[in-house]
Amino acid sequence: MKKIFVSIEYDGTNFSGWQIQPEKRTVQGVIQKAIFELLNEDVNIFASGRTDSGVHAFNQTAHFEINSDFDIKKLPQALNSKLPKDVAILKAKIIKDKDFHCRFSIKQKTYLYKVYCNKIKQPLQENKAVQVNEIVLKNIKKMKDASQYFLGEHNFYSFCSSGNSTKNFNRTIYSIKIKKTDNNIDFYITGNGFLYNMVRIMIGTLIAVGENKIQPEQISEIIKSKNRSLAGKTMPAYGLYLYSVKY
Amino acid sequence: MKKIFVSIEYDGTNFSGWQIQPEKRTVQGVIQKAIFELLNEDVNIFASGRTDSGVHAFNQTAHFEINSDFDIKKLPQALNSKLPKDVAILKAKIIKDKDFHCRFSIKQKTYLYKVYCNKIKQPLQENKAVQVNEIVLKNIKKMKDASQYFLGEHNFYSFCSSGNSTKNFNRTIYSIKIKKTDNNIDFYITGNGFLYNMVRIMIGTLIAVGENKIQPEQISEIIKSKNRSLAGKTMPAYGLYLYSVKY
Repeated sequence: MKKIFVSIEYDGTNFSGWQIQPEKRTVQGVIQKAIFELLNEDVNIFASGRTDSGVHAFNQTAHFEINSDFDIKKLPQALNSKLPKDVAILKAKIIKDKDFHCRFSIKQKTYLYKVYCNKIKQPLQENKAVQVNEIVLKNIKKMKDASQYFLGEHNFYSFCSSGNSTKNFNRTIYSIKIKKTDNNIDFYITGNGFLYNMVRIMIGTLIAVGENKIQPEQISEIIKSKNRSLAGKTMPAYGLYLYSVKY
Repeated sequence: MKKIFVSIEYDGTNFSGWQIQPEKRTVQGVIQKAIFELLNEDVNIFASGRTDSGVHAFNQTAHFEINSDFDIKKLPQALNSKLPKDVAILKAKIIKDKDFHCRFSIKQKTYLYKVYCNKIKQPLQENKAVQVNEIVLKNIKKMKDASQYFLGEHNFYSFCSSGNSTKNFNRTIYSIKIKKTDNNIDFYITGNGFLYNMVRIMIGTLIAVGENKIQPEQISEIIKSKNRSLAGKTMPAYGLYLYSVKY
């Protein structure tokens, strides 16, 4: 058996998320089907984490085991020829480390969240970035100030949706970068891990700061409160991109 | 009669171009239908120019005449509520100048062309940017040097496809900006007007420079030759965006 590590890009629009489910079109499902078609092997792929329906990935990571001697250098192109247009294997390599696991060996993960500021819904941003109030564009500095309060290790109970199986709500945020280009704002959030919907609620809170509904200094109180209702709303899935995973 | 000027954004993927045609889904067609549904008026919209099937617009401009007294400030939202998701009216205003014409009054037009450099076809760029050879990313300087030869007024016969109704092939290029972000390259080309497929052939030629197939200095010769076969290939429609029109 060989352990194969892959990097995957996908447009989440027409997928019911990562995880395989009966009767649903999922990223895991179409990749496992492509591997079966290519190698005649039924594999179980382990990803760095599930992504929800509509969430995109510039770089999802995953591993699986195969018996085949298929040339690893040719594996991405060979699988891509069997995959639909909205998912692609970017890279593949053999992992020698028996203990390596795509989910449990993660050192840090970066998510990108894309919004645009306009009173009109823009066709060219459809399913790829979320429309927000124009005033947000004027409050980049305020959102940058607010983002500083998230850095470091905190109990992020206020920033997760129910549905977590975890009992430990502590996570460490390493960096938050906010980049403005024309009327688009990209948020890059890097941490050691994220609770269910944590990025989408953090962004909802930063957008509330951009809309002058929450002051930057209040972020500390919201974290301490362990009260989900004080944080901002959960932003839509389609603005979210799994950007990179480091091991 | 009032003359209405509008700015329009559209994702060209599922349109057979701008111009109305029987049995085809076109941008002009869906907008004229929306105006009819809203105002019960059959209008004929004049755009800054036609865009081909698959070509996008961040800012197409157009005008039409109506009898209705509909509040111009509410016109964009009212029309957008009747338009499909892949087209939107960004702005509308009343034009008093009787001689103004969206096509004939143009001072300058800017097109954006989007490519990305990767050996794998990227799902998140599908229909929005064109995949090119990775080596192009290393030759930005060469492409910038090459682009300088296009500036000014030239006979662009070498850079147009047959199908032009014009007899005058002289056009003036005001600027070409080349911006690299990660593995994406955006080309902004501004001129007083463009021949049929001119932007797509100019970009094809710059990409050939990026691939070391054409040297920057050769651009002058290619222009002078008035020989289409010496220029680069016509790039695909889906990397092209009408970016702005100035009057």
